[in-house]
Amino acid sequence: MADLPSAGRHRQVVELRGHIIDSLMLPRIMEELMGLGVEYEIQQLDVGHRQSDTSYARLELSSPSDVLLATALREIQAFGASPVDVVDATFAPAPADGVFPEHFFATTNLETEVHLGGVGWTRVRYPEMDCGIVVREGVPQCEPMSDVHCGEPVLLTGGGIRMSPVERPRGTTPMFGFMGSTISSEKPKGSVIRQAAEWMRIARREGKQILVVAGPAVVHTGSRESFVRLIETGYVDTVFAGNALAVHDIEIAFFGTSLGVPLDGGPSLDSGHEHHVRAINRIRAAGSIRAAVESGALTSGIMHACTVRGTDVVLCGSIRDDGPLPDVITDVIASQRAMRSRVREGVGIALMLSSMLHSIAVGNLLPASVPTVCVDINPSVHTKLADRGSFQTVGLVMDVGSFLSDLLAVLSEPA
Amino acid sequence: MADLPSAGRHRQVVELRGHIIDSLMLPRIMEELMGLGVEYEIQQLDVGHRQSDTSYARLELSSPSDVLLATALREIQAFGASPVDVVDATFAPAPADGVFPEHFFATTNLETEVHLGGVGWTRVRYPEMDCGIVVREGVPQCEPMSDVHCGEPVLLTGGGIRMSPVERPRGTTPMFGFMGSTISSEKPKGSVIRQAAEWMRIARREGKQILVVAGPAVVHTGSRESFVRLIETGYVDTVFAGNALAVHDIEIAFFGTSLGVPLDGGPSLDSGHEHHVRAINRIRAAGSIRAAVESGALTSGIMHACTVRGTDVVLCGSIRDDGPLPDVITDVIASQRAMRSRVREGVGIALMLSSMLHSIAVGNLLPASVPTVCVDINPSVHTKLADRGSFQTVGLVMDVGSFLSDLLAVLSEPA
Amino acid sequence: MADLPSAGRHRQVVELRGHIIDSLMLPRIMEELMGLGVEYEIQQLDVGHRQSDTSYARLELSSPSDVLLATALREIQAFGASPVDVVDATFAPAPADGVFPEHFFATTNLETEVHLGGVGWTRVRYPEMDCGIVVREGVPQCEPMSDVHCGEPVLLTGGGIRMSPVERPRGTTPMFGFMGSTISSEKPKGSVIRQAAEWMRIARREGKQILVVAGPAVVHTGSRESFVRLIETGYVDTVFAGNALAVHDIEIAFFGTSLGVPLDGGPSLDSGHEHHVRAINRIRAAGSIRAAVESGALTSGIMHACTVRGTDVVLCGSIRDDGPLPDVITDVIASQRAMRSRVREGVGIALMLSSMLHSIAVGNLLPASVPTVCVDINPSVHTKLADRGSFQTVGLVMDVGSFLSDLLAVLSEPA
Amino acid sequence: MADLPSAGRHRQVVELRGHIIDSLMLPRIMEELMGLGVEYEIQQLDVGHRQSDTSYARLELSSPSDVLLATALREIQAFGASPVDVVDATFAPAPADGVFPEHFFATTNLETEVHLGGVGWTRVRYPEMDCGIVVREGVPQCEPMSDVHCGEPVLLTGGGIRMSPVERPRGTTPMFGFMGSTISSEKPKGSVIRQAAEWMRIARREGKQILVVAGPAVVHTGSRESFVRLIETGYVDTVFAGNALAVHDIEIAFFGTSLGVPLDGGPSLDSGHEHHVRAINRIRAAGSIRAAVESGALTSGIMHACTVRGTDVVLCGSIRDDGPLPDVITDVIASQRAMRSRVREGVGIALMLSSMLHSIAVGNLLPASVPTVCVDINPSVHTKLADRGSFQTVGLVMDVGSFLSDLLAVLSEPA
Repeated sequence: MADLPSAGRHRQVVELRGHIIDSLMLPRIMEELMGLGVEYEIQQLDVGHRQSDTSYARLELSSPSDVLLATALREIQAFGASPVDVVDATFAPAPADGVFPEHFFATTNLETEVHLGGVGWTRVRYPEMDCGIVVREGVPQCEPMSDVHCGEPVLLTGGGIRMSPVERPRGTTPMFGFMGSTISSEKPKGSVIRQAAEWMRIARREGKQILVVAGPAVVHTGSRESFVRLIETGYVDTVFAGNALAVHDIEIAFFGTSLGVPLDGGPSLDSGHEHHVRAINRIRAAGSIRAAVESGALTSGIMHACTVRGTDVVLCGSIRDDGPLPDVITDVIASQRAMRSRVREGVGIALMLSSMLHSIAVGNLLPASVPTVCVDINPSVHTKLADRGSFQTVGLVMDVGSFLSDLLAVLSEPA
Repeated sequence: MADLPSAGRHRQVVELRGHIIDSLMLPRIMEELMGLGVEYEIQQLDVGHRQSDTSYARLELSSPSDVLLATALREIQAFGASPVDVVDATFAPAPADGVFPEHFFATTNLETEVHLGGVGWTRVRYPEMDCGIVVREGVPQCEPMSDVHCGEPVLLTGGGIRMSPVERPRGTTPMFGFMGSTISSEKPKGSVIRQAAEWMRIARREGKQILVVAGPAVVHTGSRESFVRLIETGYVDTVFAGNALAVHDIEIAFFGTSLGVPLDGGPSLDSGHEHHVRAINRIRAAGSIRAAVESGALTSGIMHACTVRGTDVVLCGSIRDDGPLPDVITDVIASQRAMRSRVREGVGIALMLSSMLHSIAVGNLLPASVPTVCVDINPSVHTKLADRGSFQTVGLVMDVGSFLSDLLAVLSEPA
Repeated sequence: MADLPSAGRHRQVVELRGHIIDSLMLPRIMEELMGLGVEYEIQQLDVGHRQSDTSYARLELSSPSDVLLATALREIQAFGASPVDVVDATFAPAPADGVFPEHFFATTNLETEVHLGGVGWTRVRYPEMDCGIVVREGVPQCEPMSDVHCGEPVLLTGGGIRMSPVERPRGTTPMFGFMGSTISSEKPKGSVIRQAAEWMRIARREGKQILVVAGPAVVHTGSRESFVRLIETGYVDTVFAGNALAVHDIEIAFFGTSLGVPLDGGPSLDSGHEHHVRAINRIRAAGSIRAAVESGALTSGIMHACTVRGTDVVLCGSIRDDGPLPDVITDVIASQRAMRSRVREGVGIALMLSSMLHSIAVGNLLPASVPTVCVDINPSVHTKLADRGSFQTVGLVMDVGSFLSDLLAVLSEPA
Repeated sequence: MADLPSAGRHRQVVELRGHIIDSLMLPRIMEELMGLGVEYEIQQLDVGHRQSDTSYARLELSSPSDVLLATALREIQAFGASPVDVVDATFAPAPADGVFPEHFFATTNLETEVHLGGVGWTRVRYPEMDCGIVVREGVPQCEPMSDVHCGEPVLLTGGGIRMSPVERPRGTTPMFGFMGSTISSEKPKGSVIRQAAEWMRIARREGKQILVVAGPAVVHTGSRESFVRLIETGYVDTVFAGNALAVHDIEIAFFGTSLGVPLDGGPSLDSGHEHHVRAINRIRAAGSIRAAVESGALTSGIMHACTVRGTDVVLCGSIRDDGPLPDVITDVIASQRAMRSRVREGVGIALMLSSMLHSIAVGNLLPASVPTVCVDINPSVHTKLADRGSFQTVGLVMDVGSFLSDLLAVLSEPA
């Protein structure tokens, strides 16, 4: 341990070698340490000047707790960092057939070496994920939990272990860029929603607009009431949507049905599908959504809430529109101009709710610096947005109704 | 109107012609009337004896209300039924350019005829969905709302209209079977969840088992607590799952992480992915899940709740399992036998939650008569189950967490 | 056997009971027999006049071959039909543990009865799909192949077996309509493509238009050359598309890249994504696509082929368009009118290729009688189109490139 | 220009500032230059020692051609690099309303500055993707092509332009890692298939195994013949699959049907679904696949080809298996061991074809250093594999049949 006396902080010096910048070893280590809240100082960085040269880096980590420091060391091991002060690896016997000792080292799929007393760095055979490392005939090798025998020496976490990340192949392999994805239907959503709420509060504080781009699924998946409540909180400045969202919303207000299906669970009529054209026709007869609100014909829903609260709404046309409503901009270039004029006023955060066509159109208009949260049950929407190249764009594969009610709950907490 | 004096009921006689059975006109009309609660009597049914012969049916509808009767008539028009007593179609002038009169007839995409006074049945030009029918130069034709001129005569709903469904082509066209699907991410979910709760209550009453087939996504989408509550209500008799569900559940109990991601929103560690192998190892060291519960090592979650409440759990192995837990049946034929033995005890309803592999395996074991509700955010699971050929299998494309909390809410209502 | 002497035809009389029309037993039997080419005569049909009454049907089947007749009998058994002349079921011993005799009866998941000599109709225990029926302790029961013992009596296909389809529940269950789907990524595509080619030939013969609705994926999945060849065959009269398809096509003509990626496998440039705006700009500078073709600037691709051959092209705008090209109709209502005018000239078949937005828009414009083949790698497009209610709409989940090359191959065969 | 006289090479010195390592500016520039084949020398790299410090880098690029050098400069501009020798930006007037001059600079969504003569670096207003930069009232601003007026000065590509990538936020934002994805249904597949073929040739040369992991969709999407041909080329050493693949393959050999559907386009029988259990039963009666081949019962298909050619096949069981075939390993741990033993012999490349369950299981067994190509029409498979953290794993969203025929074509070319 390279402990320095000052300030009660725990320190450790690590080093790494190879194509550490373009193979992303150093960037990932920095990312990891910042995420954990462990400070680092780059004591030495010798960068290979040409693309075939390897590089060398030495970093001093510093942490207020030794537990956090140990965690950080384990995290960055997988990106090729290892302590400069080498110690021997430690082992404990398997307590039973098919059971590892409690603090066993769990493997990655990377090339791994362990430092054996009197032998030095020794390569581990058969790299395989999620195994333990067992010494057989003097050689460390990966074995799955089910295949360890009682009493065999099993590698423990700690010092004396180093790993070699797969490096980017030299030469031109044009298609293989940076792998990995932040989009997954398997990730806990809570922290993303919490971040979205934080961005909304910051936008409010800084006088920037909160933009919601909403597709018709917001209504027909039953999230209309949640969206109305969000508008009523005052956390929505601008809504970009299409004819369909507004029509579905107004159909409910007029007929209590969504795409003809009664929301109260009553029997569904095939003729109910007509309700949407009937709803359009009534607004056309009134002249506009505002006129229908002012005449008392339209008394609830998203369009009503926006009209009453003065939320700015831009409705853009598409070739699959019925009607459309008189408020819809039918020329697509005029639609783009209308959206662009709002974007230029300064957007603090964009929420994109179940709206593939609109999300992509608006994604093209927004500066990269605008935090963007895209919520859609269909993962392919996210893939299309992922090329925006921003650290502040995130995709949530989830039901928009669940998103909105969770978001409302977070926003109602004291900040 | 063929109103009969008796019982204050409203009646109407309708007829239909064509390949009315195999082109599904008659079955759909019967389906529609039963769904609406309108009674019918088949007064005459002349079935073509050979496949090239057409058929004829005459039905008398009977309804307690004239509104319901009118609704029923409009519904079954689209399947080729029309009143035997022909009246002239009625028209009203368009009140403005681009606006239809309030009770305009909204078109389908079917061949349509209107009965014009002094002319008789006249074919409508340009069949197109969601339009109105406007008379131009004496000929009725479909026009979209945006293209009607003020004052033009527009067809109203009511009598004097008949439609011709597209008939099944004669001869062998092997691939085109029955179209349509009950699976959609766009349908309101409320009524399906209400039906699921009803089936659960019926199973409880009739002494049949409630079976839940659960995939690991139940845990890592954050639905673990809801599932624990469902178990605690006593509404779960048997759980079929795999190693992954149990491991993810136990990882949370031991480490507070799911796939290594802290549930409390803390920073995610790359080494956290090890937690699942560590969790497995601890249970292997304890000997079994039950032993871990009894020793006080495992104190929360789905496996804990099942153990404490005596819910029967069958864990089946797969080749992607880590470990596995000692409770997992690693032989797939032994797994099938274990599940089959529970199915043979009599299942009243099966809930399949986010589990493609298990859902299909269990779907193969269940009799067609068992009501089955399959909940998955991925629509392709449902397509694979849809071939079970049952009127009592339904797919919900939704987040399993939202499903469980909605289901718990319905179950907690007084029945 | 109810064999009649005439004409060397093989005959059999079957009967069925229950809610045979609305539970779709009779329609499915008729469908099946027509598909097989087995003739039938409905000898008796007693329809329950009210919805609670059951019905009875007796049909005489007639087939030129006894093999085909036996096949038909097995097919319609699963829909509740059974021969009026009851024979005893036949059994053979299992030749080994875990092996059924060759002609074993393979079970469905339906309630099944077998007619045992001296006993009569006996209910089979434990209905389960894809099992055999084994007599144990005098009772027939379903057993999986792996669980049969050598020598046990196993039911063979043939007479003495009847099944009860699950019937539609009486009363109002609004949400469960007709199950099943003709859309699947698992079906052999050959026969659908063959049917599409046949419809195209019929359209050509009858002087109706062949309409192709094409999305940009036609180009960037590498199907541009195949589409050009289809246009050059003369089998395309009209193309409906958007700005993106035309721009991607022209980008290749000008720069050899698709979305900036070189088609020849050279390195991909991030700046290559600019090529699409540069392509648009050049056509805008030329004034129109036709002007660019005539000036010799545009010399290959889909738009070039359509211009040279006089294929009618309608390009409709959307809010995500860059540019757009001067040929794009930017007003969505004007776009609908342009497409509608072509539809009204009479469409014989519509091919919808990888174009969700356009497919739905055009689906709304087409009469139900127009055969429609929708090709998309994304199954959700098909679900949205499936509500058109036509026996002549079919979805293919497949790569559009494979579809086009297979279609070209079929079209080049002598008709 | 910082041209040096030596060697006829073209050179340019660029610099960049900011959090250039962890915000990935420098790694991406290195990636880009290597992809293009432009050499670089890092002349100076001052790395901020602590996480809040910014860094500075100066690189000299060197290229054999000035065109390639200019391309490289444009590519790396978007990652924050700009030439050290600042020149003024150049402009040209728009040739017409709505048309940019030919060499206009196409914008990204990043903060951008242009160097104006006599003014210096000036920030561009309204950053927006795919626009041009127009000077209005002395200020450069993004405008879409449709909104430029004839004669307005429009920025051209070249010097005097610099961009600021969005930097990684300081502090702990645990969830936002590295964005972007190499998986897309929109990418040209040709170069990936060419790379796969290259890896197969390298494996052959180096005496490593070529492993194919194959799901049942390989058969029922009609790719069986292509897979047989691949086996016959000798380019397949080992096949990992499940019961279903083998059964579907053998069903075709015995009955000419796939899931009961005739491959020759004949009518599909509902009873055809029994063919798969009948096929299993026959192989069980024979004792094994090899015995069925040797007795002359099985004469074609994938299993036949593997048996005849001595290709090693490991069939692993799953709980959804019917039968299973006698060759299937029914214990999942025994299955893992069987696959692991082959992996340990050294795999040169793994092809994963339409097999989610198997792909993930095998992905867990493989070292990170094994190049892996995953082909599946369902993008979600790829997302699950993307966490392997390798520069040599690539996902192709495409039909496996198209993949195999393209791969065969490339393999048949002279290397």
